[in-house]
Amino acid sequence: MKQKEDKIILKGDIVFTPTKEKFEIHKDSYIVAENGKVVGIFKELEEKYQHYVIKDFSNKIIIPGFIDLHLHAPQYPNRGLGLDKELLPWLETYTFPEEKKYEDIQYGKKVYTKLIRELWRVGTTRCVIFSSIHKESTKLLFDLFIKSGLGAYIGKVNMDRNSPDYITEDTKKSIVDTEEIVIEYKDKSDLVKPIIAPRFAPVCTVELLESLGYLASKYNLPVESHLSENIGELAWVKELYPEFANYASVYNQYGLFGQTKTVMGHCIYNTEEEIELMAKNGVYAAHCPHSNFDLSSGIMPVRKFLDKGVPLGLGTDMAGGHCISMADVMVAAIQSSKMKWLETNKELQPITISEAFFLGTKGGGSFFGKVGSFEEGYELDALIIDDSSLADIEPLSLEERIQKFIYIGDDRNIVERYIRGRKVEEPEF
Amino acid sequence: MKQKEDKIILKGDIVFTPTKEKFEIHKDSYIVAENGKVVGIFKELEEKYQHYVIKDFSNKIIIPGFIDLHLHAPQYPNRGLGLDKELLPWLETYTFPEEKKYEDIQYGKKVYTKLIRELWRVGTTRCVIFSSIHKESTKLLFDLFIKSGLGAYIGKVNMDRNSPDYITEDTKKSIVDTEEIVIEYKDKSDLVKPIIAPRFAPVCTVELLESLGYLASKYNLPVESHLSENIGELAWVKELYPEFANYASVYNQYGLFGQTKTVMGHCIYNTEEEIELMAKNGVYAAHCPHSNFDLSSGIMPVRKFLDKGVPLGLGTDMAGGHCISMADVMVAAIQSSKMKWLETNKELQPITISEAFFLGTKGGGSFFGKVGSFEEGYELDALIIDDSSLADIEPLSLEERIQKFIYIGDDRNIVERYIRGRKVEEPEF
Repeated sequence: MKQKEDKIILKGDIVFTPTKEKFEIHKDSYIVAENGKVVGIFKELEEKYQHYVIKDFSNKIIIPGFIDLHLHAPQYPNRGLGLDKELLPWLETYTFPEEKKYEDIQYGKKVYTKLIRELWRVGTTRCVIFSSIHKESTKLLFDLFIKSGLGAYIGKVNMDRNSPDYITEDTKKSIVDTEEIVIEYKDKSDLVKPIIAPRFAPVCTVELLESLGYLASKYNLPVESHLSENIGELAWVKELYPEFANYASVYNQYGLFGQTKTVMGHCIYNTEEEIELMAKNGVYAAHCPHSNFDLSSGIMPVRKFLDKGVPLGLGTDMAGGHCISMADVMVAAIQSSKMKWLETNKELQPITISEAFFLGTKGGGSFFGKVGSFEEGYELDALIIDDSSLADIEPLSLEERIQKFIYIGDDRNIVERYIRGRKVEEPEF
Repeated sequence: MKQKEDKIILKGDIVFTPTKEKFEIHKDSYIVAENGKVVGIFKELEEKYQHYVIKDFSNKIIIPGFIDLHLHAPQYPNRGLGLDKELLPWLETYTFPEEKKYEDIQYGKKVYTKLIRELWRVGTTRCVIFSSIHKESTKLLFDLFIKSGLGAYIGKVNMDRNSPDYITEDTKKSIVDTEEIVIEYKDKSDLVKPIIAPRFAPVCTVELLESLGYLASKYNLPVESHLSENIGELAWVKELYPEFANYASVYNQYGLFGQTKTVMGHCIYNTEEEIELMAKNGVYAAHCPHSNFDLSSGIMPVRKFLDKGVPLGLGTDMAGGHCISMADVMVAAIQSSKMKWLETNKELQPITISEAFFLGTKGGGSFFGKVGSFEEGYELDALIIDDSSLADIEPLSLEERIQKFIYIGDDRNIVERYIRGRKVEEPEF
C-alpha cells in the first residue's frame, strides 16, 4: 500500500481540551488523520494504519495549534511602544500614524513578512486579523498568508469618520475596495478568507455600517470589530448613537452582530443585555487580557461570559497588547480573572489552566470550524512541544508538563507545526 | 602603560535611570570604570583613558543589571505549577513538600545549579534569596553563587511552628544553624552575603523572631521576610498576635523591621501606619506583581509607596510568580498599577516604563549599595543588549528601543553580563 501525504500519524504525548473543565491526556499515543482530519487517537496502532506516514515525537507533547482571535497586522512595528496611553489617545498618537504607512505596499511587505514569520514561530496556526484601510497592502497580506500555509481571516479595516484625515476613508471607496477584495479572495484559498472589519462604531458612519452588513450577508462573510473596550469609548458611542439602547445594538441594527459569524474584541464593559444578545446571536467575544492591561482598559468578566454561554476565544490584540504568543495570553487571562475574582468579592471564579487552554485552542478554533481539538473529525492543527528544557528536575505528569509549557515555555519549545495534517515550514518570502 | 583588568570601558548606547522620572540616555558613548566602579560616561574618550580595556558594543544597548529583591531558590522546580491556589493552601500543597526535598543536598545541587544558570541567562546580576530551612543545602547555595560570580543575599529560612512537621524546625536548632551559616559566610565573599530570613510571622514563634532580631543586630545583617500578601494571612497574623497594632509591628517589635537593612515581600494590604513605619525605618518593599496575580493575592498600591518615600524594588517571588525574568516583572508592575489606577477611580497613577525600569535596577539595587545605575561611584553591573531582532523595521529612538526590549525582548537579546566591571561567563558547575 502506498504511503500518502494525506494519511498521517503523529505519535507522542497528546494533550487537548474537548471541554474546558479538564485536559484530555493520551500518554505515548497516536493521532491518526486522513485528509487533514482526525480519525482517532490510539494507544496501539491497528493493522490498517501501519502504512500511514508516522511522525514519531515520542516524549514530546502534541497540542492543538494556537488560535488568535484578534490582532492588528499593521501594528506589528509598535509592539511594546507607547503603552503609557489609554485607547483613544493611543490610537491618535501611535496607531493611526503607523497604519498610514501601509499606503506604501513596500512598507507593508517589510512588516507583514516579519509578522507572519513571528506568528509561525510562536505557534499561532490560525488568526483573525485586522489589516489597515489600504486595499493593496491588504491584498498583499492575503497573498503572504496564503504562501505561508497559516490560516487566517483577514479584514480590510473600514473607517470613514472621526479619525485623522490621512486615515479616514471615503465611504463609497471603502465599500468598493472591500467588495473587490472579497470577490478576489473569497475562493482563492481554503485557509485564508476575507472577513468584514468595521474598525469600531465611532469611526464608521451609519451608511458604512449598513453597507458592510449588506456585504456580509451578500457573500456570507464573517465579521470582526471592537466592543466596549474602554470607558471613554463607551461615552463616545453613547454620544454618537443616542437612539440606541447600547453599543452592541448599533452593530446588531446593521447586520454586524451574529447575522453572520461574528467576533467582537474586548467586551469589558458590556451590559447584561448585551451579553445576552451575544449568547442569543452566537457572537464571539475575543478576550484580550494583555491589551486590556497594557492600555489600562480594565478587566473583562470572563466567567460571566462563560456562564451565559457566549462563545469565547482569546486574542493578543497586538499591538494594543505587547505579546504575540497565545501561551502568554492564556496566562494573562488566568491572571486577570484572578483579579476580577477579588474585585467581585470572590463571586466570579478565576479561570483555570484548562479553561485558558480551551479558550486559546478549541474556544477560538470553533470560529474556524472544527479546529482546536483532536476529537474525531477535527482538522489536525498541531504543535509539537519539546519541553525537555522545562521539565528538567524530576519526572512530571503530563498535566504538569503542559502547565509548565504554558506558563514558562516559549517558541524555543515549539519544534514543529501542523495545519490540516501538513507540516508548515518556516515561511520564506 | 599596562592594560589592567580593573580599568575597563564599555562602549555602546547607554541607558539608565538616575531618577525614576526618566531614562538618562547616552547614544554611542563610553562608560569608564576603575576597580569595578563607574568613573564617568563620555562621548569622546580623553587621552588618559586610551589605555583602558575597551569593549566595543556599538549599536548595542548597555543597561544596569537587573535586581531581583525576592525569590525562593528551592521553588525553582515548581515554576508554573499549582497556581490554582491562594497563598496558604499553595504553601501546604506545593511549596512545603518541594522544600522538604532540600534535606538531600544532591537534590539541592541539581536544582541550584540550574537556577543560577537561569538567573545568569535572564540578566539578574543581584538578588535577595530565600533558601530552605536546611543548613547544608543553604551552604551549597552560597558556594554555588560564589562560584558563579553573581551577587546575592542568601537567607536560610526560619520557621518553627504552624507548618507541617517535616518542614518545622526546632527553635534552638534554627537559631544555631543560622548563626553557623552567618559566621561561615559573612566574610567569605564580597558579592554573596548572608541575610536573616524568618519566613513570615505566622510560622515563627516569638522566641525565634526575638533571636533572629538579635542575630541581625549582633552581626549587622540585613533581614528579608514577607508582609501583608494575602487577606487570609492577615487574619491569621491578627489571631496569632492579637496584642499588636498591625502585622508590621510584629517584625518591628523584634528588631526585624529596619533596625538593620530590611526588605519585605509583597506589602499589598498594608495600613497607612505600616507604610509610614516603613518610610520612617527605611524598610524596603519588594513588589512582586506576577506572584500577586498568580496566587490571586491582589494588587499592591505601588504609587502610594513611592509617594510616601518607602524604598522600593521588584521581585519575581519565583515560584509564587512563574517568571524569572525581571523584564517580565517590570511589565507586570506597570500592568498591575494600571489596574490599581482604575480600581482607585484614577487616584493612584500607573507607573511608567522608566519608573518600572528604575525599580528593577537602581531601586532594588540600592539594597546592595551603589548598585543599579551608571552614576559616578556606582558599581559597574551591566547587561549588553543586542536588540537588532526587535528594532527591525524602521530606526527607533534609544528610548523606544529600551521600551521594546523590556516589553518584548528576552534572554536571547542579552549578549553579555558584567558585575563590578568584570564579565560574568555562563556558570559551569
